[in-house]
Amino acid sequence: MSEISQSKSIQKAERDMSGRITIRTVAADAGVSVSAVSKVLRNAYGVSDVLRAKVNASIEKLGYRPNASARGMRGRSYTLGVLLSDIRNPFFSEIMAGINEALANTPYQPLLGVSNSAVGVERSLIDAMIDRQMDGLIFVAPRMLDEEIDAAARRIPTVVIGHHRPQAMHFDTVNGDDEAGAEHAIDHLVAAGLEKITHISLDISASEDNSVTAHRELGYRRAMERHGLSRHTDVHYAEHSPLARNLARNLLKRSDRPEALFCWTDSCAFEAISAAMELGISVPQGLSVIGYDNSPPCDLAQNNLTSIDQSGRQLGMESARMLMERIEGRQKPEHLLVETRLIVRGSTITASGHDL
Amino acid sequence: MSEISQSKSIQKAERDMSGRITIRTVAADAGVSVSAVSKVLRNAYGVSDVLRAKVNASIEKLGYRPNASARGMRGRSYTLGVLLSDIRNPFFSEIMAGINEALANTPYQPLLGVSNSAVGVERSLIDAMIDRQMDGLIFVAPRMLDEEIDAAARRIPTVVIGHHRPQAMHFDTVNGDDEAGAEHAIDHLVAAGLEKITHISLDISASEDNSVTAHRELGYRRAMERHGLSRHTDVHYAEHSPLARNLARNLLKRSDRPEALFCWTDSCAFEAISAAMELGISVPQGLSVIGYDNSPPCDLAQNNLTSIDQSGRQLGMESARMLMERIEGRQKPEHLLVETRLIVRGSTITASGHDL
Repeated sequence: MSEISQSKSIQKAERDMSGRITIRTVAADAGVSVSAVSKVLRNAYGVSDVLRAKVNASIEKLGYRPNASARGMRGRSYTLGVLLSDIRNPFFSEIMAGINEALANTPYQPLLGVSNSAVGVERSLIDAMIDRQMDGLIFVAPRMLDEEIDAAARRIPTVVIGHHRPQAMHFDTVNGDDEAGAEHAIDHLVAAGLEKITHISLDISASEDNSVTAHRELGYRRAMERHGLSRHTDVHYAEHSPLARNLARNLLKRSDRPEALFCWTDSCAFEAISAAMELGISVPQGLSVIGYDNSPPCDLAQNNLTSIDQSGRQLGMESARMLMERIEGRQKPEHLLVETRLIVRGSTITASGHDL
Repeated sequence: MSEISQSKSIQKAERDMSGRITIRTVAADAGVSVSAVSKVLRNAYGVSDVLRAKVNASIEKLGYRPNASARGMRGRSYTLGVLLSDIRNPFFSEIMAGINEALANTPYQPLLGVSNSAVGVERSLIDAMIDRQMDGLIFVAPRMLDEEIDAAARRIPTVVIGHHRPQAMHFDTVNGDDEAGAEHAIDHLVAAGLEKITHISLDISASEDNSVTAHRELGYRRAMERHGLSRHTDVHYAEHSPLARNLARNLLKRSDRPEALFCWTDSCAFEAISAAMELGISVPQGLSVIGYDNSPPCDLAQNNLTSIDQSGRQLGMESARMLMERIEGRQKPEHLLVETRLIVRGSTITASGHDL
């Protein structure tokens, strides 16, 4: 029996047994190993173009659907659980886009749970995801205690985005460099001659030292000190973005009002711009505003918001890549810090005093 | 053996067998049937306050966690799959909030799949959700063919939001009254003396007669005709919201430019406002803009967008209620049309010619 006819008979046997095309059918047709097909499917490092072309040709010829067929393999469900704390934040859509991009052409598929930042819901979603046989979890800005994240990570491969735990042993983390991001924002405002720079942050439990907001506040305080502006250091907290409008309004009504507001997230900065408009204060002439995340609405002319880009898409892509590696057996933790960039638009005055 | 000690021994037996508190433990402790506890948990119609108080007292005393404990019952997973076509649309966050509200205090928990409006992804998500033993599915604005929705609904209890199929036999639908909503928008503009009213819709396959956008376009055309303005009927399509800015810019550059833009969704209207600002056209004096969905950013001073409220929260709540009924055994289809309301803000001139 020649190699070719042997591979054909394997292919036939596979189809007969399961009634559908499996990864083994593809391997047989392409004349490669099952693990080689698996590598191509998950875009693993070190796959040659020749191998990729061969496998993809067989996939196309056979009409193989990785998602449907791969589920049975080695007890995996090829489903990843993503736990989002807040579906309304447009930044999280960017993270999801990155996760989807990394998983495209792999057999893995993400299913989302939304906790609305409630710790109780996070806990029961984790249970539900493990019960539904997900292969791994990505937590985005979790509100749980560190011990609970550790406990979940001992049960299932886990990657955490938006929570700083560079020493964690049982899971990976992916974060923007929140301290540096905040420092860029303050440096930009100080370069334009501003001094009275107030920070609007998120009102969460004071114990959350690992949160992105705590790190941004730290960056803000550090930069103010570095510029000799500690006397103007002024931090206020809003429970969620819509409440930031009231907070900003009250700050802007003070006789000694801030020259600039650095907001922990864009949606909070949009509320600050709204408050300024309502009070007849023009942005940026009367008030500079900086957001964080560089989400799509920053680019609307009516917002024109200077913001810190922390590459949500990249954070999402890296997290999915790292989770697939963990599922495939990596034990050693990886902790990734992604650089941030300042994106200057018209909501901040520039060093020359002119707005963009 | 008195009733009380009997119930205690049942409770003990339940705990010993499973190692955790179950719905039966709660029933025994409260001295009621398991189905009575189930009714309280899912907020069923006709539960007396006395029964609710009794069951809730036992739940609290025993530290019962419905989500974790109920999973084993009658082969249900108590997980519902929600298929969103686009996580970026803030209207869908409102629907999710409604679904979460209806499921709070029930044992059911939603898990989301996001298709990014790709039919292939919708198909494989449905497979994944059925494989993961979800008890029922809610499709939000699906892009699949009607036959595919029918096929899915024959496999698993299904409710569809944002897709008009009032004759469907195998699933329920929940929709805003899209035709009436569009007519309200046009009536409002015509009442202010405007005639050149252009509609910006979504570029999807022409065969999608059941889509919300097709129904809104129908309402627009009908209202224009009713007001004797058919000669000004003018519909343009953008593939997604960011592209609506270019489209609006081109429309506004025409010598014979529209006096008003009626946009199929708010995010598209925000782009139109941005285009007007970039061209130095003031809203509403030079251009009236109406959106659809009354999403939270409408309320920002920089948008101040008149919009049609289709009660996303209510659509979500009703869909979850209907799905739980289907899972509990209802077979007869229910098709719900929810009234829409015009919310007037400053982006449209009023009949008196003054802006708000």
